[in-house]
Amino acid sequence: MSEQLFPYDKIFQFTRSVFEKIGCSEAHAMTATKALLSADLRGIDSHGVARLSGYVRLWEVKRVNATPDIKIIHETASTAVVDGDSGLGLVVAPFAMQVAIEKAKQCGTGWVSVQHSNHFGIAAHHAMMALEHDMIGIAMTNASPLVAPTFSIDKMLGTNPICVAAPAGTEPAFVADLATTTAANGKLEILQRKNSDTPDGWVQDKDGHPTNDANILKKGGALLPLGGDREHGSHKGYALGAIVDIFSALLSGANYAPWVPPFPAYVPMPAQQPGKGIGHFLGAMRVDAFRPADDFKNAMDHWIQGFRNAKTVPGQDKVLVPGDPEREYEGLRLKEGIPLLEQVVNDLQSLSEKFGLPELR
Amino acid sequence: MSEQLFPYDKIFQFTRSVFEKIGCSEAHAMTATKALLSADLRGIDSHGVARLSGYVRLWEVKRVNATPDIKIIHETASTAVVDGDSGLGLVVAPFAMQVAIEKAKQCGTGWVSVQHSNHFGIAAHHAMMALEHDMIGIAMTNASPLVAPTFSIDKMLGTNPICVAAPAGTEPAFVADLATTTAANGKLEILQRKNSDTPDGWVQDKDGHPTNDANILKKGGALLPLGGDREHGSHKGYALGAIVDIFSALLSGANYAPWVPPFPAYVPMPAQQPGKGIGHFLGAMRVDAFRPADDFKNAMDHWIQGFRNAKTVPGQDKVLVPGDPEREYEGLRLKEGIPLLEQVVNDLQSLSEKFGLPELR
Repeated sequence: MSEQLFPYDKIFQFTRSVFEKIGCSEAHAMTATKALLSADLRGIDSHGVARLSGYVRLWEVKRVNATPDIKIIHETASTAVVDGDSGLGLVVAPFAMQVAIEKAKQCGTGWVSVQHSNHFGIAAHHAMMALEHDMIGIAMTNASPLVAPTFSIDKMLGTNPICVAAPAGTEPAFVADLATTTAANGKLEILQRKNSDTPDGWVQDKDGHPTNDANILKKGGALLPLGGDREHGSHKGYALGAIVDIFSALLSGANYAPWVPPFPAYVPMPAQQPGKGIGHFLGAMRVDAFRPADDFKNAMDHWIQGFRNAKTVPGQDKVLVPGDPEREYEGLRLKEGIPLLEQVVNDLQSLSEKFGLPELR
Repeated sequence: MSEQLFPYDKIFQFTRSVFEKIGCSEAHAMTATKALLSADLRGIDSHGVARLSGYVRLWEVKRVNATPDIKIIHETASTAVVDGDSGLGLVVAPFAMQVAIEKAKQCGTGWVSVQHSNHFGIAAHHAMMALEHDMIGIAMTNASPLVAPTFSIDKMLGTNPICVAAPAGTEPAFVADLATTTAANGKLEILQRKNSDTPDGWVQDKDGHPTNDANILKKGGALLPLGGDREHGSHKGYALGAIVDIFSALLSGANYAPWVPPFPAYVPMPAQQPGKGIGHFLGAMRVDAFRPADDFKNAMDHWIQGFRNAKTVPGQDKVLVPGDPEREYEGLRLKEGIPLLEQVVNDLQSLSEKFGLPELR
């Protein structure tokens, strides 16, 4: 499939204009664009500008409110619940993370559970907001049900990612951002394009049998929790996905488990809605609420260097530290541009026609 | 291998006497016994009274201080660092969890990172202390290096468990307690006794090749992070273990990564010690710092019932909720007694001789 390189700035201007066209304020359009395109920069192509038309469709069916009144509806010194008013998660999550950071400044840590939101892009973007404040950032979100827990046929959880970002000194920050499934949906899409099978432990069919069919989700199948099956620890991946759901939705009053609204606008909303929208959980811990920031950052440097210098297994030339691959992508793509698949370019072309915007070229 | 049943109370009295004999105060002996035996009650036989003689040996070589001056060395409204003064983790962790709970009462959440401690038994015991206060409890610990990160031959992390306990209403609490490896060491020991091979993805040999040899750790091999290999998501298990290490040790000033002190007293201490003892991380979040506790607990009941009623894959009769198997063990073992292997009974017999205590019978 052919790819074309576009400079980050071009895609940025285009995306921002689209968000403004659906009615976002200038500030919100800027925030949303930065969040969305952080995925393209970091090499998570499934979560970036490729989804822009998906967000627009959600706005068209009135599941996304472009002018939300995002507000704190309950708080204590170290906690808050934020109502996203059905806004873009790309705007709601940075708002909530900022609340967490402000609380951490005051009392050491801040923890914000969010209801009534929508998909927030990649978790890393929000968690990493904490880094410049010498804080550890944490971001999670629930998502529409694609994952069958251990022993279940029913899809009860989303890919429910967890991100933790921790500052270092001279080394780059530690940034672990992981879906709690063996493989995220984006990995399946890559195999579909290549007409390849999945490895064992990624998916099961509609009757709960293991399969290697990369198209199985369209046939009623499910993603499997990290671990794949019971013997390989899938009950742990299931538990992690469940923890994300509890922190993001049970604490905030968002929808949870199989009742989380779907991302594709053509999929009907669940008949039962025990909460509001989808849920996120954002946290910030000030490092010097525990020990002097320089001591922590020096220890992080030592930790990171220890891993980088570990002896490798045959056929591998280095042990990676979480965040390494994404940072390498970011450096490269800022310089050389972001590769977009032909179908994504066409999709953006349709948006430029819809909104009377200059073509992306 | 023959097993014998002993009433919980008998084992409790015996264990408490042993802790008193090594010099623990009455209160500390009680706390440590409760923490240690919670593992036997919950079916985690590898972490319970079977380890009592191991703790005694650590005391004999002066790696455990039976009369520690456990104290807060730094704090903010929502955080603290606790110095365990080389005490039993079984005593230090409940102290730190109590600090977290008190802070949560005041400002919504409490987060305590612990340095200078020792092994703390099972994480669930400490996390579950939060439940009676209508709080979510979180417990983590680092541990001596047995785990090779993705692409590494060197063992850089412990099995670094994470536990999250969340209260429900009429349903029992959600309690997820998981080592961040495909399988914990205790699972290997079971296979060793049966002379069985491990499934794929549990261990690798000293050269970094996959193996199914359950005895491979004695031959320089390593446990693998949850996921097993890169294709099955081991970089995620590795990242989770790393997060536990950062929260437990980098935030507190404890030893980290391959420099965490070993549990067996005969294994020499690492030559390099970048911190003090081993590290834990304990957290408590008051549910009503987010929303009314009854609303949360009703939602948890609904969530739990949803999972219990999910359709099962062929050959399985129910979908479990994290905490179910351990709770079933606890009910059974409180009633019928705790089964101890002959080698454990002999081990306890040696302790009764060493300390002039009445035999466990």
